[in-house]
Amino acid sequence: MQVESIAEEKQGYAASLASIQEARRRISPFAHVTPVLSSSSLNQRARTNLYFKCELFQKGGAFKFRGACNAVLSLPQDLASKGVITHSSGNHAAAIALAAKMHGIPAFVVMPKNAPKCKVENVKRYGGKIYFSEPMLKSREEVALSVQEQTGAALVHPYNDGRIISGQGTISLELLEQIPELDAIIVPISGGGLISGITIAAKAINPNIKIFAAEPEGADDAAQSKAAGKLIITPHTHTIADGLRASLGSLTWPVVRDMVDDVVTVTEEEIVNAIQLCYEILKVVVEPSGAVGLAAVLSTQFQSILSKQIYKHVGIVLSGGNVDLGVLGRLQI
Amino acid sequence: MQVESIAEEKQGYAASLASIQEARRRISPFAHVTPVLSSSSLNQRARTNLYFKCELFQKGGAFKFRGACNAVLSLPQDLASKGVITHSSGNHAAAIALAAKMHGIPAFVVMPKNAPKCKVENVKRYGGKIYFSEPMLKSREEVALSVQEQTGAALVHPYNDGRIISGQGTISLELLEQIPELDAIIVPISGGGLISGITIAAKAINPNIKIFAAEPEGADDAAQSKAAGKLIITPHTHTIADGLRASLGSLTWPVVRDMVDDVVTVTEEEIVNAIQLCYEILKVVVEPSGAVGLAAVLSTQFQSILSKQIYKHVGIVLSGGNVDLGVLGRLQI
Repeated sequence: MQVESIAEEKQGYAASLASIQEARRRISPFAHVTPVLSSSSLNQRARTNLYFKCELFQKGGAFKFRGACNAVLSLPQDLASKGVITHSSGNHAAAIALAAKMHGIPAFVVMPKNAPKCKVENVKRYGGKIYFSEPMLKSREEVALSVQEQTGAALVHPYNDGRIISGQGTISLELLEQIPELDAIIVPISGGGLISGITIAAKAINPNIKIFAAEPEGADDAAQSKAAGKLIITPHTHTIADGLRASLGSLTWPVVRDMVDDVVTVTEEEIVNAIQLCYEILKVVVEPSGAVGLAAVLSTQFQSILSKQIYKHVGIVLSGGNVDLGVLGRLQI
Repeated sequence: MQVESIAEEKQGYAASLASIQEARRRISPFAHVTPVLSSSSLNQRARTNLYFKCELFQKGGAFKFRGACNAVLSLPQDLASKGVITHSSGNHAAAIALAAKMHGIPAFVVMPKNAPKCKVENVKRYGGKIYFSEPMLKSREEVALSVQEQTGAALVHPYNDGRIISGQGTISLELLEQIPELDAIIVPISGGGLISGITIAAKAINPNIKIFAAEPEGADDAAQSKAAGKLIITPHTHTIADGLRASLGSLTWPVVRDMVDDVVTVTEEEIVNAIQLCYEILKVVVEPSGAVGLAAVLSTQFQSILSKQIYKHVGIVLSGGNVDLGVLGRLQI
């Protein structure tokens, strides 16, 4: 855990509107302001107006660059020179490698050996040095610790880090400028860095806005934790959404517990259907994790919520687009 | 040929900056302002700064909606009530069906029987009545004439029509507001409606801007016509870019002859490579015709032009995204 995170945590949560605004100033020379797309045809299916925040167009092909860039730029000069290290199934790894490359420092990356090929290629393309681990979080953390001891590099956790949460929160600042009338946002949830940043910023700007987490049934630790009122870790996950297999952390769970309004879980079939709609109607290349928000909006669960409470303008974060196209072929997409 | 086109042609070309600005006013409540994407990685490959105008996000998945909407809205009320008819390999057909549906009039569409399945589906989805013809232009025109006689519907040619050219030209108005510093634009060429509108508007706004047409080697009537200084029709075409098989028309050839600066031809392999880059790097779903502009910029021919004349800011029109995903699978993309 980083010093900055501890300091902020004492004031409440690991990030605040101020730290998110500061992150935006820090990363804006480097990150894209991503466009928002809409489709009449998808609005009809969802029975509301949808606004797709296209983080798949972010540098590195996913929202992760926002947090990674903020974390790298927040490092003191003497620490930065030894480089950064992280462990990640893919998009955060590539984002850290890219942010490090842009700022001329080395990046060491621990990836599970079953990470998607295109995500491994992205890390290589950005010059990150890869160490493979077993898929389980424990193995990833052990390898990372050992590499950190050898190199002296600064650890940047993929989500349990205030700098990361603040970086991801910059999405809300942009999205609520692009579509100020939003009354709900649907966000894929995994370790919770993305939804924590988005929630803190969005609710600071508009306290009435509702935030829904979207999660695969086969990796539903957020839904279980919300239902139990305590953090539940699910060691085994089963989903094609390879970016959503992590569990909530000590800094993200409090935000999800206190400020996220509900969790919508979706089946694998619903995810595949949403991917297909993204390709055929929105014309964007989305990875399975990235399509879970659309899957949630179209699900029976959310449609039932909509029948009781009208949300007229719903933002959906399409979180990333790094996918092996051959995998899509096997899904018959 | 339409009355309006003849009137405008007498003043020079089939469209003007004024008719394009008028088209913009007419279609802006219905058409999307499409976003512009960029990628450092593709800039490096192209050795210049590229700006991708994403017409694949236009309503109906292609730029064609601009012209179709302008044409439908230009019809006098008494003529409009009998509906519109057109012949097209796909995107114009769907655009006419969509524009007609939005304005509550019938649409009759003649499509070649080898049109891509997704394009036929789009026409059906928008409620257009389809008549299939043989692939050749002559058969398409004959069937269209016969349906026109039966229905009294107004013919809207896919490109040889001032209203269509003016509608497509609205792309330049948007693009030059989005990226005012452009010094060149690369546009796929087929019948020439798109490039004629874009060229007329862009050169009226900035007389120094250069316009390059991008064309498959297997359908290179524009390159042959430019080289010969006269309109050459190539009856046989061979390319995966199914939207680029038409030949220039009497209203588009004068614009291409006088105002388009050069034609860059690309191989099928270069088109496939460009499609792949659009998917993997830009994260957009592009159809083969839509990727020909990127193929052209990366080609030896254009790179050789760049080595003599520096264009620092190059716009590329990604013209459409309607593709059968199974076809991409067979291209091993």
